[in-house]
Amino acid sequence: MRATVMYGAGDVRVENVPDARLKEPTDALLTITRACICGSDLWPYKTMERTEEGQRMGHEFIGIVDAVGKEVRTVKRGDLVVAPFAWSDGTCEFCRQGLQTSCLHGGFWGGTELDGGQGEAVRVPLADGTLVKLPVAPDDALMPGLLTLSDVMGTGHHAALRANVGPGKTAAIVGDGAVGLCGVIAAKRLGAEQIIMLGRHADRIALAKEFGATDIVSERGEAAVERVRELTNGLGAHSVLECVGLEDSTVTAVSIARPGGAIGRVGLPQEDTIPEAGSSFFKNVTIAGGPAPVRAYIEELMPDVMEGRIEPGRVFDRVTDLDGVPDGYRAMNDRESIKVMIEF
Amino acid sequence: MRATVMYGAGDVRVENVPDARLKEPTDALLTITRACICGSDLWPYKTMERTEEGQRMGHEFIGIVDAVGKEVRTVKRGDLVVAPFAWSDGTCEFCRQGLQTSCLHGGFWGGTELDGGQGEAVRVPLADGTLVKLPVAPDDALMPGLLTLSDVMGTGHHAALRANVGPGKTAAIVGDGAVGLCGVIAAKRLGAEQIIMLGRHADRIALAKEFGATDIVSERGEAAVERVRELTNGLGAHSVLECVGLEDSTVTAVSIARPGGAIGRVGLPQEDTIPEAGSSFFKNVTIAGGPAPVRAYIEELMPDVMEGRIEPGRVFDRVTDLDGVPDGYRAMNDRESIKVMIEF
Repeated sequence: MRATVMYGAGDVRVENVPDARLKEPTDALLTITRACICGSDLWPYKTMERTEEGQRMGHEFIGIVDAVGKEVRTVKRGDLVVAPFAWSDGTCEFCRQGLQTSCLHGGFWGGTELDGGQGEAVRVPLADGTLVKLPVAPDDALMPGLLTLSDVMGTGHHAALRANVGPGKTAAIVGDGAVGLCGVIAAKRLGAEQIIMLGRHADRIALAKEFGATDIVSERGEAAVERVRELTNGLGAHSVLECVGLEDSTVTAVSIARPGGAIGRVGLPQEDTIPEAGSSFFKNVTIAGGPAPVRAYIEELMPDVMEGRIEPGRVFDRVTDLDGVPDGYRAMNDRESIKVMIEF
Repeated sequence: MRATVMYGAGDVRVENVPDARLKEPTDALLTITRACICGSDLWPYKTMERTEEGQRMGHEFIGIVDAVGKEVRTVKRGDLVVAPFAWSDGTCEFCRQGLQTSCLHGGFWGGTELDGGQGEAVRVPLADGTLVKLPVAPDDALMPGLLTLSDVMGTGHHAALRANVGPGKTAAIVGDGAVGLCGVIAAKRLGAEQIIMLGRHADRIALAKEFGATDIVSERGEAAVERVRELTNGLGAHSVLECVGLEDSTVTAVSIARPGGAIGRVGLPQEDTIPEAGSSFFKNVTIAGGPAPVRAYIEELMPDVMEGRIEPGRVFDRVTDLDGVPDGYRAMNDRESIKVMIEF
């Protein structure tokens, strides 16, 4: 089969790899119908050291079940399913608490041991805990929106939950990528009264407004902090969604949080430390978040996608086939595209 | 009047200063009856650069109202009152939310502008928002316990609340000073099932056990982390109370927190950054806390002190008069004493 392999920064190839196949009785085998490229894929795209064997890429996908191991109970051949970006058993201490990204027996797609989502097929470990059946046909117009339940929509929702977004509050979103845009959707969905998007790209700003952003802050650094203060009676935002993961963006997040506020961080941290230890302390600002347990959110968010109340699929502004994946990475890295969907 | 002034690291003096007096119509003037030395006073005691003018010390005290400004309504001459370590108006946005340490018009005792608590008298700004009347006589046997409501008991309570301590959970306390010991009391009071104290001093360990600690971990660093893991089925603690503020103690706090757990930090941060940004992220560990809004907790905790259900006053293991304050600093800094009470 063919799949995406990254060999180093900037070096993404689509090539022949061993066919995905069942190994464990708890596995399912999927033929992938939709996948996408994630903002987090751009970190290795920028920085990965060259390797001979490369690593398989992709962690967001929808597919049709081709075969299941003999212990699989919840999905069967022919089912259309969505996979969260982490696989999990659904039964351990952490899965039962809804923190499937810390599953004691789970893990993440791709790398050197497992299939990735940016390929023709994938072996899914712990299929019963991992996969969620979709009640539509594989070519349904809702596919883009349903595909975001594998990561970005659930991740934006996680950021909003961890930042304690709620009715009447002010939410600020740091990062205008697909996750930040889904954070706008999540903040509105959870009742935020004022939604401030920090961003500078016209296409993203336009989408953020359509998703519910009430204010746009295009300044950078201290000027952005000042502008958020002006917009919040000098107090700052109750809830800050940190959707980048860089030191600068975290400094901004802490600086615009009001005393007693919370930061939901979902941007993969690119540093060993969290800056502004004193400022967040003196303001009693809570710093929460991490990899979103999107598996816990799929059932909650799916009805809103199915019934058109939210349209996270609009973050996809480019569609490609598998051969176009390397150029998709380039386009996202160059900010030509917000998020690229792969149709098989 | 006489009061405590610090001129630099290790240089604490009791000397004559201008008498405290009313300045604003919202002020009260107190004659102090009890005060104490705080673990946080030891940070300047270790590191303060020498100054000519010095800074007034002390932020935990009980006193008798001598006079009030004409706008003060809630306390009157002759009342015995306790003061939280931050003064606050009680009416601003943040005070109404119970975050009086971020009061828009409040502040902290001592320094170069205000009286400190380690002196004979103190001007209390915003007396109505700040002071809480005590329903006992100044020489009541409960004085030590009531005095802890000015800081350490409320601070331990804040750490426990921010660490989401609750029934059936495991709480771990990093730091065996007076705040950590009050954290043990708070964790037990909030229903923690397992309370792990990380500490090595025999007197503190003994008190921690009497306060409700179920396990003592005396190892350091990675060995301590391993021991906490052993005590928690390999998972770590749901709630970690960080009562030190150093980089090492914060690394330990993050390392012993279980996925999805929370750290309530109340130790004054001694570094600009919070370590273990990646580890706390990947485990979805929440980092919360800051200066405790003890004013919000006094009414809640006072009945438990009055009725003997909690005995935080036992953290005082030495009593001195005002002249003994410099030696009290030395004794606490040398770990001869957990916490020193000053009787006037």
